[in-house]
Amino acid sequence: MKNQIGREIPETIPGYGKVNAFAGVFATIPDGKRQAPPVKRMLPGQTKLVESLEEIFKRVPIKDGMTLSFHHHFRNGDGVLNQVLEVAAKLGLKNLKIALSSIFPVHKPLIEHIKNGVVTGLDANYMSGPVAEAVSKGLLEKPVILRTHGGRARAIECGQLKIDVAFIAAPAADDYGNLNGVSGDTACGSLGYAFPDAEYADYVVAVTDHIEPYPLAPVSISQTRVDAVVVVPCIGDPKGIVSGTTQVTKDPVGLKIATNAAKVIEATGLIQDGFSFQTGAGGASLATAHFVRQMMEAKEVTGSFALGGITGYMVDMLEKGLFRRVFDVQGFDLEAQRSLRDNPNHIEVGAGLYASPFNGGCLVNKLDVVILGATEIDTDFNVNVVTGSNGVIMGGSGGHSDAAAGAKVTIVVANLLRGRLPIIVDKVLTATTPGESIDVLVTERGIAVNPRQPELRQRLAEAGLPVKDIAQLKELAEAIAGAPAAVQTGEKIVAVVEYRDGTIIDVVRQAKEV
Amino acid sequence: MKNQIGREIPETIPGYGKVNAFAGVFATIPDGKRQAPPVKRMLPGQTKLVESLEEIFKRVPIKDGMTLSFHHHFRNGDGVLNQVLEVAAKLGLKNLKIALSSIFPVHKPLIEHIKNGVVTGLDANYMSGPVAEAVSKGLLEKPVILRTHGGRARAIECGQLKIDVAFIAAPAADDYGNLNGVSGDTACGSLGYAFPDAEYADYVVAVTDHIEPYPLAPVSISQTRVDAVVVVPCIGDPKGIVSGTTQVTKDPVGLKIATNAAKVIEATGLIQDGFSFQTGAGGASLATAHFVRQMMEAKEVTGSFALGGITGYMVDMLEKGLFRRVFDVQGFDLEAQRSLRDNPNHIEVGAGLYASPFNGGCLVNKLDVVILGATEIDTDFNVNVVTGSNGVIMGGSGGHSDAAAGAKVTIVVANLLRGRLPIIVDKVLTATTPGESIDVLVTERGIAVNPRQPELRQRLAEAGLPVKDIAQLKELAEAIAGAPAAVQTGEKIVAVVEYRDGTIIDVVRQAKEV
Repeated sequence: MKNQIGREIPETIPGYGKVNAFAGVFATIPDGKRQAPPVKRMLPGQTKLVESLEEIFKRVPIKDGMTLSFHHHFRNGDGVLNQVLEVAAKLGLKNLKIALSSIFPVHKPLIEHIKNGVVTGLDANYMSGPVAEAVSKGLLEKPVILRTHGGRARAIECGQLKIDVAFIAAPAADDYGNLNGVSGDTACGSLGYAFPDAEYADYVVAVTDHIEPYPLAPVSISQTRVDAVVVVPCIGDPKGIVSGTTQVTKDPVGLKIATNAAKVIEATGLIQDGFSFQTGAGGASLATAHFVRQMMEAKEVTGSFALGGITGYMVDMLEKGLFRRVFDVQGFDLEAQRSLRDNPNHIEVGAGLYASPFNGGCLVNKLDVVILGATEIDTDFNVNVVTGSNGVIMGGSGGHSDAAAGAKVTIVVANLLRGRLPIIVDKVLTATTPGESIDVLVTERGIAVNPRQPELRQRLAEAGLPVKDIAQLKELAEAIAGAPAAVQTGEKIVAVVEYRDGTIIDVVRQAKEV
Repeated sequence: MKNQIGREIPETIPGYGKVNAFAGVFATIPDGKRQAPPVKRMLPGQTKLVESLEEIFKRVPIKDGMTLSFHHHFRNGDGVLNQVLEVAAKLGLKNLKIALSSIFPVHKPLIEHIKNGVVTGLDANYMSGPVAEAVSKGLLEKPVILRTHGGRARAIECGQLKIDVAFIAAPAADDYGNLNGVSGDTACGSLGYAFPDAEYADYVVAVTDHIEPYPLAPVSISQTRVDAVVVVPCIGDPKGIVSGTTQVTKDPVGLKIATNAAKVIEATGLIQDGFSFQTGAGGASLATAHFVRQMMEAKEVTGSFALGGITGYMVDMLEKGLFRRVFDVQGFDLEAQRSLRDNPNHIEVGAGLYASPFNGGCLVNKLDVVILGATEIDTDFNVNVVTGSNGVIMGGSGGHSDAAAGAKVTIVVANLLRGRLPIIVDKVLTATTPGESIDVLVTERGIAVNPRQPELRQRLAEAGLPVKDIAQLKELAEAIAGAPAAVQTGEKIVAVVEYRDGTIIDVVRQAKEV
C-alpha cells in the first residue's frame, strides 16, 4: 500500500507486524489508556543497593526475550549499555530487545551481541557508526524501529514500547534511588530522555558511579520509581557527550544560509516579546541562532523560551536575558550542565513534555520557529535525515519530526549540494519528516516556501528575499552537479521509520554492499 | 468480623461495599497495575483557557454520579470547592462524589448540597467543622471514606479512588496549564496533595486567579496533565491557611511533655549526622522540635531532612544548616511559601512520594523520628485522631498513620488529661493508627513504651527517663479525673476509617444528638 505521502509500504512487515500507514501530521487521534506498570512497595529499612549488574539480572530476573531500555545522554561516551550486555552475554541470555534512545559508534559491541543472538531487536531514535552500518547491511533479522524523540515517549506512555527493565545511567544517585545528571565526576546534564523509561518500565535500575548522602538534590528521577541502585566503577566518559558541531560555523556558505534563515524569521514577524525558538546543534543552525540573537538584541526583545538539546550558546542567551527560560532535554556541553544545575530558569524536561504528540500538550507545540537540517529534501518538502547517499543509516529523526510538527514556522537549512550531490531530489530515499510540516527550505542559492503556505511565501518575497520554487532550486543544483543516480537498495526491510504518532512513514531497505 | 486489632467491622458496609479488614501494618502486599487515565492530545494552537466553571461542566461534560477531586492547601481559606459546587447545583447535577483531601469549616455549604442530593459521597483525610458534625449525625446516607494522606495517594494511584475531574486550585498558572503555588497574590506554597489528582484524573482543570506569561516557572504541575485553565476572581484566602497552632507552646505542661519527648529522642541515639525528623504543627510538637534543635546545635549535628507540613520553624532550621533538605507537601505559613520559592533545598513533594505505601519507597520510610498527637490512645497503643469525646468527627489521620508506619521511632505526645478526660483508655472510640506503629507515649507524668520495643524501653530507663507501663499512666489519670464513661453511639456507620494500605481499621458510628 501507499501511505499519505506516497511511500510504498507492505501491509505487514515480518518482525514488525501490521503497519498503520502514515495518514497526515495530525491524522491520528489517540484512544486507549496510559501504560500501567505494576504497583510495588518498599518497606522501611529495605535497601535498594545491589552489588553488581549480574545480581540485578538474577534478582529481577531478566529473561530471554525481554526488552531492556537505555538512554543516550552520554552519546558517544556511554559506558552502561556495553557493561549490561556483557553481563547478558555471560549469563547466556538470548533474544533481548534493546530500546536505546540513540546508538553511537561506542556501541559497536552490539554487533557481536546481535551475531550471537543475545540481542535480536533494536528500537532507537537515531543511529550512527558501525551498528547503523551493520544493520543497514542486514545484520538483524527483524527491522529496527526508528522513532522520533517524542514518538518514543509516546510509544512508552501508550504501552506500545513496553519496557521490562530500564537501565538509567545516573551521574549521581543516593542509596534510595533519587537520581540526577548534574552532580558527580561524570555529570552529563539533563536526564530527560530517560524520564518515560523510569515512569513506565516494570523495573527500574539506576547504574551510577557516584553516591551522595540521602537525600540527593536536585532530583531528576525520583526514588518512587527506582527499584535498585548498582554502583559500577564508571558509567561513561563525558568527553563523548560533546559533539563536534556545537560551534557557530565559520564556513562562508554556512554563514550565507544562516543569514538567509535569519531574514526569513525576521520576515515572519515572530521576533517579538515571547518569541520561542529551537535549533539543532549543527554549525549552520547555531549561526542562524547567532543572527537571530542580533535581531533580538537590536529590537530589545525578550523571548519566552529556547528548547531542545542545549549548548552553551543558548545558556548565554538565557543569562543575557534574551530568553526567560531554557528547556533542556539533553545537554551538549559543560556550560549546559553548569547552567542546568545552577539556574532555576534552565529547566530539565522529559521527552514526553518535550515532544510527545499524545499528552495534554508538549513544548514543541508552543514553538514559534525551529531550524532543522536535512540530508535530502524532495520537491514535496519531505525530509530524509535517516539514510545517506549510499543508502546506509547514518542518523534518525531525533526531535526533527516533532519540532517540525509543533512549530509555527519550520525552516530547513541546507547547502544546495552535499558533497557533490544535490540535496533536493524528486523523492527522498527515506522520508523521515513529512513535507506537510516543513514550511521553508533555505539554501545559499535561494529560499523555497512550501506551497501550502502561500501567505508566508508572499511575505518573504515582499521582504526582498530570494524566493524560488523548490523545483527551480533543484534545477540550479543539478546544473552544477548533474542529476544524481538513484540509490540501489535490496528488498529486505532493515528499519521501519515510525512517525511520532506511531504510524509508519517509510521503511529502509537493505543497503547494497559497496 | 474482628480485624487484627480487634475492632468489630461488618463484612460488607452499605454504601461502601466489601470490607478488607486491617491485618497488620505491613500485611498487605500490592498486586495489580497503576491507574491508567485516557491518553489525549492537544494540537499546536489549541487553547486551554475556558471562560467559566460552568463552561467546564459543559465541555467535559460533568455528569450525575461523577467523582470530582479537590485539594486542601488553602485549608480554611479554600474558595474553589464552594464555587464549583454552586455551579453543580445550579446545573441540577446530582449524586456527585467529592474527594477533597481535607474538609474545613469554610466548606459548610457542602451541607446544603448534600441535603439537596447534589453531593452523596465524601472522601477525605481530615474533617472538622460543620460538615464533620453534620456527617457524624447521619447527614449522608453513604459513609464517608476517611483515608490517610499516603493512603489517598495510593488509592488514586491504584485506581481505587477513580477521579473523573480534578480541580486544582492554582495560585499561579500560564495559559497552557503549568501551575505552581508560590506565585501570585493567593500563594499557598506546596501543591503536593494535588499531585496524584493531576497525575491520574481523567480530566484536570486548573482554577486560578493569576495568569503569568508562558512558560511559568517553577512548575509544580505540568501542562502535560492539565486539560483546561479557568480564571476566576479569587481562588481562596491565604489567611485561612495559617493554623492557630504553628507556634511553639508556652504552656508549662506542654513544655514539660516536649522536654521529655526530646530526651526520648536523645536516648535513641538517633541525633547524629543524617538525622531525619517530622513533627506536626501543634504547639507541643513544635516545642519538641525546639528542644531537638538545641541538642542538634550542641552536638553540631547536620540532619538529612525534615518532612511534612512545613512551618517557618523548619525553614529556619534549614537556613541555619541544621537540615540539608526540607520536604514540603503543605505549607503552613508565609515563611514556608517564601522558602519553597527561593531555596533549592526546600523541595515540594507530592502525596505519593511523601507517604504512599505502594511505590518504590516513600519519604516517611526514611524518617528517624516522628512526633505525633493523639485525641485518645489505648493500652494497646492504638491512637484515635478522628473522633472527639462526644463521638463527633473532628479530625482525621492526615499523615499520622503514614509517618507512624515509616519512622524508626514514633512518639505520641499528649497531655495525660484532655480537658477533664484521661487520654489513655482501654479501647479508643475510633482506631486511626494501629498501636503496632506507635513506639512511645510521652505525657507530662511519665513515658510509656510499647511492649513490642523492649530494647527501647530499657534504653530509656537507663537514660533515667520516667518510664512507666501505659496501664500505670492510665491509672494516674483516672486517679485525678475518674474513669470516663463510655461514649454512646448509634448503629449507623457514618465513616469508614481506611488504613494507608486500603484495609479498614475501624468505622465511625453515628453520634448521639447532645
